[in-house]
Amino acid sequence: MNKDVIIGLFSNIKGHGPLVHHLTNNVTINDCANATLAIGGSPVMSTSIEEVADMVQLADALVINFGTIDDQMYEAMVIAGQAANTKGIPVIFDPVGVGATPFRTERASNFLNKVKVNIIRGNATEVYALIGGKAITRGVDAGELSISKEKLALEAADKLQAVTVISGETDVISNGISSVQIENGDIWLTRITGTGCMTASLIACFAGITDDWFSAAIAGMSVMSLAGENAKNSLQANDGIGTYRSKLMDEIFLMNEAVWEKGVRFK
Amino acid sequence: MNKDVIIGLFSNIKGHGPLVHHLTNNVTINDCANATLAIGGSPVMSTSIEEVADMVQLADALVINFGTIDDQMYEAMVIAGQAANTKGIPVIFDPVGVGATPFRTERASNFLNKVKVNIIRGNATEVYALIGGKAITRGVDAGELSISKEKLALEAADKLQAVTVISGETDVISNGISSVQIENGDIWLTRITGTGCMTASLIACFAGITDDWFSAAIAGMSVMSLAGENAKNSLQANDGIGTYRSKLMDEIFLMNEAVWEKGVRFK
Amino acid sequence: MNKDVIIGLFSNIKGHGPLVHHLTNNVTINDCANATLAIGGSPVMSTSIEEVADMVQLADALVINFGTIDDQMYEAMVIAGQAANTKGIPVIFDPVGVGATPFRTERASNFLNKVKVNIIRGNATEVYALIGGKAITRGVDAGELSISKEKLALEAADKLQAVTVISGETDVISNGISSVQIENGDIWLTRITGTGCMTASLIACFAGITDDWFSAAIAGMSVMSLAGENAKNSLQANDGIGTYRSKLMDEIFLMNEAVWEKGVRFK
Repeated sequence: MNKDVIIGLFSNIKGHGPLVHHLTNNVTINDCANATLAIGGSPVMSTSIEEVADMVQLADALVINFGTIDDQMYEAMVIAGQAANTKGIPVIFDPVGVGATPFRTERASNFLNKVKVNIIRGNATEVYALIGGKAITRGVDAGELSISKEKLALEAADKLQAVTVISGETDVISNGISSVQIENGDIWLTRITGTGCMTASLIACFAGITDDWFSAAIAGMSVMSLAGENAKNSLQANDGIGTYRSKLMDEIFLMNEAVWEKGVRFK
Repeated sequence: MNKDVIIGLFSNIKGHGPLVHHLTNNVTINDCANATLAIGGSPVMSTSIEEVADMVQLADALVINFGTIDDQMYEAMVIAGQAANTKGIPVIFDPVGVGATPFRTERASNFLNKVKVNIIRGNATEVYALIGGKAITRGVDAGELSISKEKLALEAADKLQAVTVISGETDVISNGISSVQIENGDIWLTRITGTGCMTASLIACFAGITDDWFSAAIAGMSVMSLAGENAKNSLQANDGIGTYRSKLMDEIFLMNEAVWEKGVRFK
Repeated sequence: MNKDVIIGLFSNIKGHGPLVHHLTNNVTINDCANATLAIGGSPVMSTSIEEVADMVQLADALVINFGTIDDQMYEAMVIAGQAANTKGIPVIFDPVGVGATPFRTERASNFLNKVKVNIIRGNATEVYALIGGKAITRGVDAGELSISKEKLALEAADKLQAVTVISGETDVISNGISSVQIENGDIWLTRITGTGCMTASLIACFAGITDDWFSAAIAGMSVMSLAGENAKNSLQANDGIGTYRSKLMDEIFLMNEAVWEKGVRFK
């Protein structure tokens, strides 16, 4: 990891204004759009199979999020993903809930066969399921597994040939050769919905302005963990998760190279 | 009603972390997810007909909300509802807008024939429509009707064999034999979208950790009304419904046995 | 433009509580519902082809927003639009992203052939695409074009026989004969998602209580621009777009004839 490269991404992102096309779930879609705007990108969320390929032509990165997939959405995801591969823009895959039902696990496996994914972001059980492991997943939350997150990230990145981001108390990002661990974060990031999904959007924004996807993944993941920590520190007595949600978006918006360099903590 | 039972629910909910599967509308789905998290539950919102039955196997309670149903969603709701019945987890039904169009009224009737519903939460006109009454419903808002809410709740609970919750200025909860009325609340709860839907989620969280669905319904309904009142009291001059929304979520998050016991007012 | 007419709309809207039916995108649907409530209207968002015509019978205005259309949604939009035409309630059309893909442009053209639209609200490139112009559109954001916004609004209003609202740094509203320009606003209105969509909802609320759609359009557009400005002015150091979103909704809620008359600036 080269810190200066990441600092350069912060310097450039607002000027570039990367357009990030999302095919995502309908629970946190608004949060993803606002997180994209907050960091300096521009979100598009169309999902019609008749236009996703055309929309990808305008985009700098593509987010595929499995949160509320059905057959129609899946079909659109494959079309969009293949168009992104052809165009050469990065595909960021968020395998929400993979491992929880056979449907999700099969579709994820299918998707990885049809689309070249460049960055994967999930929790440990989701990533474990992606490489064929069987963890006890409970809905969309992380379950327990027997492999360490560090080893899992490295193995998944190597096996799937994609930069792999595992969110958690410590975040691990691996390119299959080396790994980085981020110590920032706050337990409250798990007490609101959408922080994982928004992380994928942030990573996609950075990936849309560089070919160095490892750095983009570290940048996006660390923005969420540091913003989540800063938002928590800005709370007052009697604030709860409603206020926290607003403050989190504020902190993503306020993030820049100076705030990042001062606050980020690698292990 | 036994207050100690409800206090026990507050003591247990965060430890249990009930998983609540939702098939709900796309207007307030994010609010429902966050309300579930705020009270201590874990939300899942998948709707694909290919996986809802499997997802129900992981869940402690199921919310069915008619807000933006179409044929495909309805089909998934029936599958999920029947899976919940088989598994023996409670089904909480929110008949949004029933009575407003023949489509909604017919589908609701159909649904009640196919799925055993354990708790119903609606406004007075929606519940009236469920038992065959014809009120003047205006969209998704409550219209006027000639039967008292107390009598309606009792009659509906008896007829539909489900704990029935009627939200309003005074909330009424009935199990068909006895009824409870909650005097908390604030008119501003009607000035933002989603408070009814979130109430169903809260009820489902409590219903996911007990077989005493009457107590669960009282707990969930009273959390929303008391939180709505506390949120209003916490506002400052020039705050409007944007701030109110955040504060409402804060107050749900801050709710516990002490806050509840001190603030709840039964008639 | 007659300022007294607009002041009259503010006096009447909360008493009338216009019911606004929306067929809109799933990114900002919650924001649209809350904006409708904030100004004094009542939102309905059902989209099933089996009931949209019935729901329109209950409504005072209809919003058609192309943000995340697919074939099924488009079909429902045509049914709802034609029902609104038959009933004689105003149709407000938000051509989100039109010009960005052939699919969108063709569907918009098709829609305008099948449904009589009374008010159009978009950014300059979207409106330009509606009248057959080819601008460089970039996703859902405004691109650049060679015609002035003033001339475009006038021409579009005349050609499409609909009051035309072009949102931007200066907002232009034209009825094809005369035009009005609003100088309020803030760049932060472009840094959160949904402000355009919410503007269409606000316009629809006013259009639901008068036949003077030109005044309704001016009222709705100016509420958003003035509220956006007031919200920005109410921010404190270290507030970002999370807090801004809440404050914007607060300011829409607090808007009335006095606030409007004091703050609005026409060019």
